[in-house]
Amino acid sequence: MKIDKNNISDHNRKYKDSFQKEFNFVSGKLEQKGINIEQIVQKVNDFQVAIPSWALGAGGTRFGRFSYGGEPSSLEQKLQDVGILHSLTRSAGSVSLHIPWDIPKDIKAIKEIAKSNEITFDAMNSNTFQDQKDAKKSYKFGSLNNSDKEIRDFAVEHNREVIKIGKELGSKSLTVWLADGASFPGQLNFQRALDNTQDSLKGIYDTLPADWKMFIEYKPYEPNFYSTTIQDWGTSFMLANACGEKAYTLVDLGHHLPNTNIEQIVATLMYKGKLGGFHFNDSKYGDDDVTVGSIKPYALFLIFNELVYGMENNPNNPELAWMIDASHNIKDPLEDLLQSIEAILVAYTQALLIDQKELREAQLRHDVVKCQEIVQDAYRTDVRSILQAARLKTDAPLNPLEAYRSFEVRKNLIQERGSKTVATGL
Amino acid sequence: MKIDKNNISDHNRKYKDSFQKEFNFVSGKLEQKGINIEQIVQKVNDFQVAIPSWALGAGGTRFGRFSYGGEPSSLEQKLQDVGILHSLTRSAGSVSLHIPWDIPKDIKAIKEIAKSNEITFDAMNSNTFQDQKDAKKSYKFGSLNNSDKEIRDFAVEHNREVIKIGKELGSKSLTVWLADGASFPGQLNFQRALDNTQDSLKGIYDTLPADWKMFIEYKPYEPNFYSTTIQDWGTSFMLANACGEKAYTLVDLGHHLPNTNIEQIVATLMYKGKLGGFHFNDSKYGDDDVTVGSIKPYALFLIFNELVYGMENNPNNPELAWMIDASHNIKDPLEDLLQSIEAILVAYTQALLIDQKELREAQLRHDVVKCQEIVQDAYRTDVRSILQAARLKTDAPLNPLEAYRSFEVRKNLIQERGSKTVATGL
Amino acid sequence: MKIDKNNISDHNRKYKDSFQKEFNFVSGKLEQKGINIEQIVQKVNDFQVAIPSWALGAGGTRFGRFSYGGEPSSLEQKLQDVGILHSLTRSAGSVSLHIPWDIPKDIKAIKEIAKSNEITFDAMNSNTFQDQKDAKKSYKFGSLNNSDKEIRDFAVEHNREVIKIGKELGSKSLTVWLADGASFPGQLNFQRALDNTQDSLKGIYDTLPADWKMFIEYKPYEPNFYSTTIQDWGTSFMLANACGEKAYTLVDLGHHLPNTNIEQIVATLMYKGKLGGFHFNDSKYGDDDVTVGSIKPYALFLIFNELVYGMENNPNNPELAWMIDASHNIKDPLEDLLQSIEAILVAYTQALLIDQKELREAQLRHDVVKCQEIVQDAYRTDVRSILQAARLKTDAPLNPLEAYRSFEVRKNLIQERGSKTVATGL
Amino acid sequence: MKIDKNNISDHNRKYKDSFQKEFNFVSGKLEQKGINIEQIVQKVNDFQVAIPSWALGAGGTRFGRFSYGGEPSSLEQKLQDVGILHSLTRSAGSVSLHIPWDIPKDIKAIKEIAKSNEITFDAMNSNTFQDQKDAKKSYKFGSLNNSDKEIRDFAVEHNREVIKIGKELGSKSLTVWLADGASFPGQLNFQRALDNTQDSLKGIYDTLPADWKMFIEYKPYEPNFYSTTIQDWGTSFMLANACGEKAYTLVDLGHHLPNTNIEQIVATLMYKGKLGGFHFNDSKYGDDDVTVGSIKPYALFLIFNELVYGMENNPNNPELAWMIDASHNIKDPLEDLLQSIEAILVAYTQALLIDQKELREAQLRHDVVKCQEIVQDAYRTDVRSILQAARLKTDAPLNPLEAYRSFEVRKNLIQERGSKTVATGL
Repeated sequence: MKIDKNNISDHNRKYKDSFQKEFNFVSGKLEQKGINIEQIVQKVNDFQVAIPSWALGAGGTRFGRFSYGGEPSSLEQKLQDVGILHSLTRSAGSVSLHIPWDIPKDIKAIKEIAKSNEITFDAMNSNTFQDQKDAKKSYKFGSLNNSDKEIRDFAVEHNREVIKIGKELGSKSLTVWLADGASFPGQLNFQRALDNTQDSLKGIYDTLPADWKMFIEYKPYEPNFYSTTIQDWGTSFMLANACGEKAYTLVDLGHHLPNTNIEQIVATLMYKGKLGGFHFNDSKYGDDDVTVGSIKPYALFLIFNELVYGMENNPNNPELAWMIDASHNIKDPLEDLLQSIEAILVAYTQALLIDQKELREAQLRHDVVKCQEIVQDAYRTDVRSILQAARLKTDAPLNPLEAYRSFEVRKNLIQERGSKTVATGL
Repeated sequence: MKIDKNNISDHNRKYKDSFQKEFNFVSGKLEQKGINIEQIVQKVNDFQVAIPSWALGAGGTRFGRFSYGGEPSSLEQKLQDVGILHSLTRSAGSVSLHIPWDIPKDIKAIKEIAKSNEITFDAMNSNTFQDQKDAKKSYKFGSLNNSDKEIRDFAVEHNREVIKIGKELGSKSLTVWLADGASFPGQLNFQRALDNTQDSLKGIYDTLPADWKMFIEYKPYEPNFYSTTIQDWGTSFMLANACGEKAYTLVDLGHHLPNTNIEQIVATLMYKGKLGGFHFNDSKYGDDDVTVGSIKPYALFLIFNELVYGMENNPNNPELAWMIDASHNIKDPLEDLLQSIEAILVAYTQALLIDQKELREAQLRHDVVKCQEIVQDAYRTDVRSILQAARLKTDAPLNPLEAYRSFEVRKNLIQERGSKTVATGL
Repeated sequence: MKIDKNNISDHNRKYKDSFQKEFNFVSGKLEQKGINIEQIVQKVNDFQVAIPSWALGAGGTRFGRFSYGGEPSSLEQKLQDVGILHSLTRSAGSVSLHIPWDIPKDIKAIKEIAKSNEITFDAMNSNTFQDQKDAKKSYKFGSLNNSDKEIRDFAVEHNREVIKIGKELGSKSLTVWLADGASFPGQLNFQRALDNTQDSLKGIYDTLPADWKMFIEYKPYEPNFYSTTIQDWGTSFMLANACGEKAYTLVDLGHHLPNTNIEQIVATLMYKGKLGGFHFNDSKYGDDDVTVGSIKPYALFLIFNELVYGMENNPNNPELAWMIDASHNIKDPLEDLLQSIEAILVAYTQALLIDQKELREAQLRHDVVKCQEIVQDAYRTDVRSILQAARLKTDAPLNPLEAYRSFEVRKNLIQERGSKTVATGL
Repeated sequence: MKIDKNNISDHNRKYKDSFQKEFNFVSGKLEQKGINIEQIVQKVNDFQVAIPSWALGAGGTRFGRFSYGGEPSSLEQKLQDVGILHSLTRSAGSVSLHIPWDIPKDIKAIKEIAKSNEITFDAMNSNTFQDQKDAKKSYKFGSLNNSDKEIRDFAVEHNREVIKIGKELGSKSLTVWLADGASFPGQLNFQRALDNTQDSLKGIYDTLPADWKMFIEYKPYEPNFYSTTIQDWGTSFMLANACGEKAYTLVDLGHHLPNTNIEQIVATLMYKGKLGGFHFNDSKYGDDDVTVGSIKPYALFLIFNELVYGMENNPNNPELAWMIDASHNIKDPLEDLLQSIEAILVAYTQALLIDQKELREAQLRHDVVKCQEIVQDAYRTDVRSILQAARLKTDAPLNPLEAYRSFEVRKNLIQERGSKTVATGL
C-alpha cells in the first residue's frame, strides 16, 4: 500500500489551525532571541535518517518473538514500508539493507520500487555474526578475527559481495559490525585476534570503490561474552586509521558500558575527522535497542549538540550516515519507528536552538551556571511545532503517528499481506 | 541581607508581558485537553523543598575546596541565605539542619530569625560519619553498626541529642544517614553489623516523640568502600519495619548502583506506605551530587510521575519530606540551588500534566505506543510559564536566577560577610 | 550410555599416587592449623548441586544456536546426562525440571530412570515467560503481573500444574522466575503490577503442599526491558513475606546490577531466615550465564563464605536449594557443567577453610589487615586435592573432565543419539 | 629506623623448614609439568614495583582523615619507609615522587638516603589538580585543558619544573594525571578542551630529555564530574601519538567504567608498543583505591597474563613502569603496601605458570574448555612458596607482614616520629 496524499491533506486541514497558533507563538519567541527559524525548519527538512530493513518486523528476544500482522516478507515489501514512513515524515528517505537477509533478486526492479517510494540506498550491512543455512564455513569462533585464515577469507569475501550488491543499488558505504570475541578468559589471544581483524578489514577496504566509505562499529559486549575484539571507539578508530582515509568509526548509541560519556566520544571523533555514522536507539540497562529517546532524551540532545557543533566546525569530517538501529517486539514496528524519528528530530531541533556564540562566551568566562542555562533553555523548549512546520512544507502529515492510525495503515498491510507473515532478519 | 520587595516588583513589571503571553498560550492549550491549570498552579505553589544547611557553602572535593565569597559562617547567616532563596522562589520555605555543624546557641533567637524569613525546620540530620574534634569515641570503624557497644551507644546518644534540639526548633523528623560499612572483604561480619544497626536504630526510635518520623537512608557505597551496612532500599525498608510505624525509608537519588530503576523503588515504597522522604540531586557516574536535573531530567520526571501517583493513591503513605541534597564547588551555591529548585518544579509540573485516566486506559489495552505518547507529551511540554504563574501569585520574581544576578545578591553578601568566609559543614 | 565403573577405577589407579602426594601435603599443612580435614572432605561429599534440564543442550543466543552433537532430545536422555555428570563427580545427584519443556509422559518410568542414575528431583521450574504453541493466552504483556485477570489466572494455573507434576516426581519445591515487566516508561503501572504479582503468587502459594517451599526469583532486567516487576531481592523478600512461611527468596548470581554486593544480600536473607535457594553462573557484563567461576571466582568464594556462615549460624534458615543456572553455546554442555561443578566445590572448600573464630577475633579488634589475611589465606590455598579426596571416597574419578574425555562420552552420545539432535528448552 | 638484618635471619630460621617443605612440593609438581621453576623465581626477584610517596600516610576521605601514628612528615622519612618495605620484600626498590608534595630541599642528601636504602627514583608525578597555597593561578576550571592560555602555560611550566627535579634525582619519566574536565553539560567545549590539552602536552613533551618517557594517564570521572578531558585509553593513546615516540599511555586499574575489560586494553596498547606504565590498586564500585588484589584478584591475574605475554612478544613496547597507586585510611599504610606487593607478585607468578604454547594450541583448535582449564590451573596453584623462595634468595623475610609485626616497626616509627604526624600529600 501507499499513503494516499488526499488523506494527508485532509489530516493537515484538520490540525492546521492549532499548529499555526503554536508555531506562531514558538517561532515568535525564538525570533526575539535572534534565532532564524526558517533556517532551522530547513535543516529539519534536510535531515534524513535511514531505516534498517530488519527493523520493519517485530524484534526477537531469546525467549521467542511475538510477530506482528502484516510484516513485510520480501525486500519489495520492506521498501514499501520505508516508503510509508517517508510519506508520513519526509525524514526517512533511505533504507539500510542487511545482506544476506535482503539480497535483491532483481536489482532493476528493486531500484524502481525504491525510486517510486523516493527511497535511496544508505549504508550496506554485512553479516558475519550468523551462520547461514548450509554455509561452508562457520562463524561460531569468530569471523574477521578468526585464527583460521580460511574463515577470515570467507568473511572478507562476504563483505566484498555486499559491496558489489551495494554498488549496483547505488549505495556508497559499507557498515561492518562484528560479534567476534570470546566468552571465556583464555579462549582468545587478544593481540592475534586484533591483528587478524586488522588484516581482514584491510582486505575488505582494498576492494572498496573510490567513492565509498567503510564504517567500523564497536561494541563492548554481547550477551554471553567476556570480550569483543572491537570493544570501544579507541579500537575502532585505531583500525580505521590502519585501513585508510575512507575508513571511519561508527557510533551506535547502545554499544557502550554503563555511564559512558558518548557525546564526548562524538566530539573527539569529529575533531579527528573520523566519525562516519551514527546509529540511534536507546537503552536502560544494556544494548536494549528500545525506541530512540524513550529512556534518556537529554543524553540524545547532548549528543546532537556535539553533532551540530561538529557539522559546523569540522569540515574534515564527512557527512554523517544516520540510521535507526532499534526494533521492539511489543510495538507495531512502524509506529515504533515513527516515535524514533520524532525523538531524533526533537533532539536535533533543540540542539539547533543553542546559541553557540553565547555559549562560547559563557564558557570562556567560566560562568558554569550560565552555560547550563543556555543548554537547558534550548532543551526545555517545546519544539514540536517546528517539526510540524517542516512536515507541512513537504506535504507530510502534521501528526504522523495519528495519521498512521487514522489511515489504518496496519489494517491495510494485514489485508494485503496476511497476519502471519514474518520478516526476514533478526 | 534580605531581598527588597520593590526589586521584585520592578523585575516582574519588566517581564510580565512576555510571561503573560506565554502563559496564556500554554494554559490555553492545556485547558483544551481538559487540564485544570489553576489547580496545577496551586500545587506548584504548595510544593516546598527543604534546603540543607550545608549546601549553602561551596562543596568540597578530596583535592580541596574552592571557597566562594560571602559564604555563611553561622547558622544565622545560613537561615538568611535560605530566606533569600525562599524570597526568590517561594518554594524553599524550610531548612534541614545538620548537627553538630548547626547547633543553635540561642534557640529562641534562631527561631525568630527563621520566622522572619518564613522558614520552618524540616528534618534534622545527625552525623555519625565524622569524628568531631576531641570526641570521646571514634567512628573510624563504624557508628550504629560498630561491634563495640560503647561506640554504638555514643552514636545513639548523639541522635537523641539531635532529636532534642529538633524538638526545641519545631522540627518533626530525624534523618539517619550512615557511612557505616567495610572497605575490605572479611573486615565486617555482615549479619552482626546489620543486627547491631537494627538495635541502634531501635534505640533511637524509642526516644522519638510521638508526632515525629524517623527516616532511614540507604546507599550502596562510599568512595573506598567494599560494602555499606544499609546498602539498598530493601535493607532500609526491613529496618524501618523492625523499628515501627514512625520509621520510613528515605530515597536519595544519588544513592544507587548504575542503571537502577529508582522510580520503581519509589512506587514500591509508596505502595507499602513506607516512603518517608526524598533527597534530590543528580549524577553521571556515581554519587556525584550535581545540580538537580542537570544530567538526567527525564528520570527525574519519571520519578515525579510515581510520586504524584502515590500522593494521589496511597493515603497510607505520609506526606513526603523533600530536600535538595547537592552542592557544588564551581558554582555560586545559591545559584546552584535556584537551578535545582527550578528543575524540581519543572519535573513536578510535567508529571502533573499526565492524564492518569487516559494512561490507565492505554495500559489496560496494552497500547504501549500510546502509553509512551502520553508520558512524553507531558514531558515535552514547556511548563516554565506555569512555574512563573505560581511565582507571580506569591510575589516571587518571574525569573529567580536573573533576579538574583540583577539584585547583586552575592556582591551584597560578600560586602556583608567578607570574601574569605567558609561555611561549616562538608 | 552410563559411565563404566571399571573405567573410573582405571582412571583413579593412574592418578592415585600423584593425588595422594598432594593431598598428604595439603592436608598435613591444614591440620597443623587445626583444621579437621576429614570433616571438610565429608562436607564436600555431602554437597549436591542440581542440574537444570535445559543446560544439557547448547545455549541459544539471539543470533541462533550452534547445536552440539548428541544432545538429549527427551527427558529420559536428560536424566541420563545428569547421571553421567553424577557418576563423574558424585556432586550432581539431582535434576531441576522445567515445565513445559520436560513434562514426563510416563511418571513411573521417569522415576525409575532417575533412581537408576541415583538422581532426585530438585525444585520444579514453571515457565510463564514464553508462549507455548497454540496457547490460549499470551504472556506478551506479562503473566503473573498482567492487568488481565484471565491471563494471570492462566499463569497461576500453569504453576499449579507444575506443582502437581512435581509432587508425583517427589520434588519438594517450586521456583518462580518471571520475565514480567515493561519495555517503556509509562507502559506499566508499577503499583498495580506489583499488586497483581502478589495476588498471583498467593494464588500459587495457596495450593503449595505443606512440605513444599516456593522460591521467588528476582532480576533487574532482561534485554529490551525498562523494568521488571520483581527487580531486586527487596521486592522478592517483600513478596515472600506476603505469601507466608514456605515462601523464600532465591538468589541467582547473574541477576544483579553492576557492582552489586551479592554476598551481603545472601547474609541479609539468611539473617532473616528467608534465603531459599541459589543459582550459580558467572558473568562479565550482564546476565551472561557463563561457566561458574570463570570470571569472578573471588566473588563466588566470598558468597560461599556467607553461605557457610549462615548454614552454621542461622538455624531459622532452611537448607538451601543449589542449582547451576548457566549454559553456553561454544562448549560441550557436559564439559561446561563439569567445570561449573568444580568451581563451586573449589569455592565452597576454600570458604570452609576460613577459621571463623580467628576471623571473629580480628574483626572485634578491628584488625582489618588480619581479617583480609585470614580470608585470602583460605582463598589462596590450592584445595583441588581435597575435592579429589572426596571423589575418591565415592568412587568418582579423580579428574572428572579428563575422565569424560578419555572415556569418549560425547562420542558415545553422538553414536547413540546422532549428531543433529536438539535439546528442548531455551 | 631500618630493618635489622639479624631480625630477618632469625625470622627466616624460624620459618625455613615449613617453607622448604612447601616449596619442594610445589616446585616438584610444577617441574613435572616442564616448568623451569628457577627461572620463575628469578623473574619474581627481578620484578620491582614503585611505591608512591603519598601512599605512606593514611589516605583521606571527603569526611576527613584518620591519621596513623608515625607517619612520615618529610621526604627523608618517606624514603626511609620505602626502605623498610624494600628490606621486607626486596620488591619495592623505587619510589615515585609527587611534586609539590615532595620537593627535595637538598638533592644530594636525598639521593644519598635513597642510595643507602637501595631505592631508585621511578616516574615523577606532577600535580595540576590542586591549587597550592598562594598559587598565582587557579586550576579550578582546568589546567592543561583550560581555555585561559596563561593557566595552561602555568601548568606546563609546573610539569617542566617536575622534570627538572626528576633529572637531578635520576628519574627517567614523568607521569601526567589530570583532573581536568567538566561538572555540567555545556560547561566545556569538548573539542577545544582536547585541543588545548594536546597543545599543553606537546609543550611539556618538548622539554622532555632524550632518555625520558612521558606517561599520559586517563580516567573516566572524578566524584562530582560530568566528563574528564582524557576519559579513556583511546584519548590517551591519541594524545601520546600526537606527542611523539617518547609518549605512552599509562593504565591505572581503578580508572575505568564498570565492567571494562582492562586486560584487553593492556593487550591492545602493547600490540601498538604504547603501554608505558601500570598503576595497581583495586576497587568494588568506583575508583576505590583499595589494596591490590583485595576485591578482584582474578582480573589482576588476567591482566598479568597479558602483561607477561606482551613482555615476551612485543619488543616494540618499552619496559613498563609499575607503581602501586592505592592508599587506605583504616589500615597501617605500610601493612597495606605489603599486602599489595604480595598480591601483585602472586598474580604475576600465577601468570608466569601459564603454558603459553599449550594455550596457543588449544586456542587454535578452538578447545574453549581446555583454554579455560589451562588458565585456571595456573590461577588455582598456590604460589606463595615461590614468592618465599625469591625472598629467601635476597635475604628478605619469608613472611613480610609477620616480620613487620614481630619487628614492631610501627611502634618504632611512632617512637621516632610521634603519634600525631601527618604525611604531606592527599
